[in-house]
Amino acid sequence: MTTPSDKSLETPLRDYLTETQTLIDAELDRLLPAESVAPTQVHAAIRWSVFAGGKRFRPVLMRAVGLCFDASTDSLLHTACALEMIHTYSLIHDDLPSMDDDDLRRGRATCHIRFGEAIAILAGDALQTLAFKTISEDERLSAEQRVRLVAEIANAAGTPRGMVAGQAQDLEAESCEVASDELEEIHRLKTGALISAAARCGAIIADASDAELSVVSDYAGQLGLLFQITDDLLDVTASVETLGKTPGKDIRAAKATYPNLHGLDGARELAQQVHTRARATLDQLNRPTDSLHAIADYILHRSA
Amino acid sequence: MTTPSDKSLETPLRDYLTETQTLIDAELDRLLPAESVAPTQVHAAIRWSVFAGGKRFRPVLMRAVGLCFDASTDSLLHTACALEMIHTYSLIHDDLPSMDDDDLRRGRATCHIRFGEAIAILAGDALQTLAFKTISEDERLSAEQRVRLVAEIANAAGTPRGMVAGQAQDLEAESCEVASDELEEIHRLKTGALISAAARCGAIIADASDAELSVVSDYAGQLGLLFQITDDLLDVTASVETLGKTPGKDIRAAKATYPNLHGLDGARELAQQVHTRARATLDQLNRPTDSLHAIADYILHRSA
Repeated sequence: MTTPSDKSLETPLRDYLTETQTLIDAELDRLLPAESVAPTQVHAAIRWSVFAGGKRFRPVLMRAVGLCFDASTDSLLHTACALEMIHTYSLIHDDLPSMDDDDLRRGRATCHIRFGEAIAILAGDALQTLAFKTISEDERLSAEQRVRLVAEIANAAGTPRGMVAGQAQDLEAESCEVASDELEEIHRLKTGALISAAARCGAIIADASDAELSVVSDYAGQLGLLFQITDDLLDVTASVETLGKTPGKDIRAAKATYPNLHGLDGARELAQQVHTRARATLDQLNRPTDSLHAIADYILHRSA
Repeated sequence: MTTPSDKSLETPLRDYLTETQTLIDAELDRLLPAESVAPTQVHAAIRWSVFAGGKRFRPVLMRAVGLCFDASTDSLLHTACALEMIHTYSLIHDDLPSMDDDDLRRGRATCHIRFGEAIAILAGDALQTLAFKTISEDERLSAEQRVRLVAEIANAAGTPRGMVAGQAQDLEAESCEVASDELEEIHRLKTGALISAAARCGAIIADASDAELSVVSDYAGQLGLLFQITDDLLDVTASVETLGKTPGKDIRAAKATYPNLHGLDGARELAQQVHTRARATLDQLNRPTDSLHAIADYILHRSA
């Protein structure tokens, strides 16, 4: 991998990212119950976690796919918010003491630290419900589209082939050695499934053909994998800079990460390969895929 | 209230209950991932809680309403299972240490006692997802029906006017005095909303008219209230029989229950009044409502 750089963000992608984040945040603000409405603690907790400075990666990807197939931003917006609700619910529950036990996320207190465990559990539960409510009530979409979107996201979020399955297998893997293909499977479920669903939802709303949907799935699969590899690489970099730990120490630790399994250089090379495959996949689409290429570049070179 | 008796169950209602429970359990067994499928612990935990001997009250009510409006049992079955999944997910999460902290439910270990907290949280999360997946993929229903059902259940299960809101307000109320109307509001959200949704889903699948749907909502609202009052009354009776505590002791306790607010006789009289209202509501329907009358009788006289 080349030295991480924000070069790709000097392009119009940065404008696209900012614009999408602004749109999504404004729409989430409209869709989520106000803090002044009872139960106020649950609604405050939901907003604390939803507006914690997330990058809105799933909405960004979904919108780019949708626009590439000529969907309107309007038609994509509520499903994009629903994806962000599902993603946020999973972060709230994953951070709980009995799960990953994290006190901080993006530099501030996690939901259960700020509001207590009971409210955090209920906030996550309610966010999941709100996601499905949001899609089912989106009158800009046909009933057929809404039903497909609910099924798509439910399959990606649940068990046996979705996010919850990945989190469960990740918890099980904490105490034992994990082979390379097992690690890939865990990430495919834990983060990849919802990233793929985001891309596919954009294509579904745009009424893309089955053949196009299949290419989008392949692209998103590579993107999810790339996202995880660069995430693991950033963990190592962050360790060097902020914790003063040497990469070698992390590599010797038991945690199943790409640098630990393949070495730093091996993981960087793998990221390059996956990035190349993701871009090559897009060549199969007879569509303007500039922003999808830019998103792949952005993930490869991201520094946060 | 008359002495609790199973007299109403000497009627064909008992056959109807048993038949519905058998149908629902068989269908849930088909819909839920097998324990042998990874993540095995989550699937074992889901099945542990779903097959814990629940009375399947929501499916029973939903099917009775659906049949009263000429829906087929086949068309009702998956949504009935989805309601039971939502109900079970809420029990799993409500039992958690940070919530109601219950070790036992229906005489056996609660999900987190048996499988640990992390798996219990994930099992609840996955059950909620499975509920929406089940409805969205039910090809016996039109897309329009499925979308309405998802919205109906999501509104009843979430915030600000559903089950999660009720649970949050119940947690807040634990530490303070609760007025009669507040108690009613908590129960309306915590248990009433999903019971109403069950009845309404039966009517929606049967393509009942808006006027009929409105009567069904009224009936189900009374039923939910009756359910809660008799639940509180049974708690007192159970205390006498199994704990050797006197009713008077319970009444002096701080817990917000109908006997505590109205006295034992007052609560019994309230149950009678609500039962009468529920039955009177049914007179507005020009349909065969025998089983809906029988369900109201059953709840008034239930001994468990």
